[in-house]
Amino acid sequence: MSRTSRIPGGPGGPGSTGGEINMEDVARHAGVSIATVSRALRGVSGVSPHTRRRVLEAATDLSYVVNNAASSLSGGATGRVAVVVPKLDSWFSSTMMASIEATVRGGDRDVLVYQVDGRDQRSRFFRELPTRRKVDAVVLVSLPLEAEEEERLDLIGVHMVIAGARLRDYPFVEVDDVAIARTAVGHLIGLGHRRIGMIRTSDTDGAHWTSDLHRCQGYTEMLAEHGLGEPTLVTEAYGVHAGARGMARLLDLPADRRPTAVFCYSDDIAVSAYREAIRRGLRVPEDVSLIAVDGNPLGEVFDITSIDQHAAEQARIAGEMTLHLLAGEPLEETGRMVEFTLVERGSTAPPPS
Amino acid sequence: MSRTSRIPGGPGGPGSTGGEINMEDVARHAGVSIATVSRALRGVSGVSPHTRRRVLEAATDLSYVVNNAASSLSGGATGRVAVVVPKLDSWFSSTMMASIEATVRGGDRDVLVYQVDGRDQRSRFFRELPTRRKVDAVVLVSLPLEAEEEERLDLIGVHMVIAGARLRDYPFVEVDDVAIARTAVGHLIGLGHRRIGMIRTSDTDGAHWTSDLHRCQGYTEMLAEHGLGEPTLVTEAYGVHAGARGMARLLDLPADRRPTAVFCYSDDIAVSAYREAIRRGLRVPEDVSLIAVDGNPLGEVFDITSIDQHAAEQARIAGEMTLHLLAGEPLEETGRMVEFTLVERGSTAPPPS
Repeated sequence: MSRTSRIPGGPGGPGSTGGEINMEDVARHAGVSIATVSRALRGVSGVSPHTRRRVLEAATDLSYVVNNAASSLSGGATGRVAVVVPKLDSWFSSTMMASIEATVRGGDRDVLVYQVDGRDQRSRFFRELPTRRKVDAVVLVSLPLEAEEEERLDLIGVHMVIAGARLRDYPFVEVDDVAIARTAVGHLIGLGHRRIGMIRTSDTDGAHWTSDLHRCQGYTEMLAEHGLGEPTLVTEAYGVHAGARGMARLLDLPADRRPTAVFCYSDDIAVSAYREAIRRGLRVPEDVSLIAVDGNPLGEVFDITSIDQHAAEQARIAGEMTLHLLAGEPLEETGRMVEFTLVERGSTAPPPS
Repeated sequence: MSRTSRIPGGPGGPGSTGGEINMEDVARHAGVSIATVSRALRGVSGVSPHTRRRVLEAATDLSYVVNNAASSLSGGATGRVAVVVPKLDSWFSSTMMASIEATVRGGDRDVLVYQVDGRDQRSRFFRELPTRRKVDAVVLVSLPLEAEEEERLDLIGVHMVIAGARLRDYPFVEVDDVAIARTAVGHLIGLGHRRIGMIRTSDTDGAHWTSDLHRCQGYTEMLAEHGLGEPTLVTEAYGVHAGARGMARLLDLPADRRPTAVFCYSDDIAVSAYREAIRRGLRVPEDVSLIAVDGNPLGEVFDITSIDQHAAEQARIAGEMTLHLLAGEPLEETGRMVEFTLVERGSTAPPPS
């Protein structure tokens, strides 16, 4: 980073105003990390106005002079934006990638793609990208990160936008997944269902995306508020078989606990669950209702009632935020919540009588 | 390109051996395009050994000296590979992209992604990429190109590998789509089907991919060889509704022409067709059989019999060919055909009696 090589005389150093003050001194004075000082002084995204002010005051107090040579290392325009996604071959990731690519290329920048699936690849990504300064900005599409990894994001030292989730103080665009789940489960309750199950999902390491945690929260809240007993949750690692496997587990429950309606994490999980229902000779929605989230056109083919989270729109906004930051323009809002839409189709009906 | 700025004295110029010979002279002497001379002299892919020899002989005859400054413009390593795909959010494209990205990044290069869907975006791509020299190589994933666009590929002036298709003299990796279709239709004929339909597909502009043309050819050949009458073909623009729409058209045919089995261009088209059959109260395979191509795991969920074309493997080979070319190593073969596999599942059975 931009630390000067000379170490200050000792712990008393930061107090002196004329000496060799470095970023570590400013960080200690402001009570924040060195990475935060670096970001605040370079004016890149991910630092709250309050923190930025504190850092600038500390720098002024100490007469700290930004090392311009080091600073320009990260400031040199490459004309490229990195998009980091968990799995390129999932509907959500490829839809986000397609829309971010179109927006960013429309702004005359190129898109570098990083597929980062699971702990090993994440660790490699964090080891490599920051040291190479290959891009002017990073768009991070809903990766499940560990706490230590979140902190390392600061070290990447370029503009960062989070799409489909929220992370630290970075600019973000997302949907309200708790409200989405409440709407979906509310729709089922409105139709008269009392035994409602949920098929959740995780990545290959078993880590849950924030969206899954929030959808689970909304589901659980609604059940409790309507006195519908304990949640009936199953979790399957994300993939084409997740829905069928989850549905099989739910349909294998004893009759008095078997759900008459299932809230699925995503449309593709619902389509896979639909297949399992049909395979067992059940009818959708006469025997079991299905509702899901995404707006994946595959769900439309199978007539799955769904909450459209307007993924391409989220991605477009994330791309535009990135272009604004790169143009040095302030963002009107550092966070954007995209509206969602309940699309009623043929997979939901009152429970069998 | 690498043409020197001085124009030779006149048409007779090329004959003189000591003067200012440029690439245009070499091209005229060898009877090839300037772009071909440029590629041949820089040793990048896409020129047949025969043509390369002719160019080198012409250059020798004329004592042409490569302009090294201009040549290094394109030779300077950027550490990046461009991957060009028609639609990022289709199964084939995103699977190819995921596997190429993993391979190329494993070779310590970054991947720039270009989504090029339809004529306008293709035209923009051809206008921009060649002039900017942003990459060391391009992997082209089965774009439908017009003849004039194919010629412009040469002007990109870097290594080029074609994945999932074959184009001019460029190194390629693909499957034998005619043989795939013959195997699929042969499987249906072996089960006793006599009325076999096919759902074909095109891009948004109505252009057919080479793979579609070849699968259609294999289907038509088999019908003719087995005396099964005229082909029953429907074409739908690629997308999630293509299969359902195509299936509806086939099922709406008069009973004596309605197929008892349908060969679908891809697994996702078959899944969409399956949905249309179920929606009409038909059973798969009891009332109608479905067979498709890809190896898309979604097809597995719906138990669709399929020819696996090992897309991830094709992409991996394309990525490795690219790394070889960038390392200056000769390719063992300039073209690689990947084997395919018939995977029998539950969507094919003898016709209803």
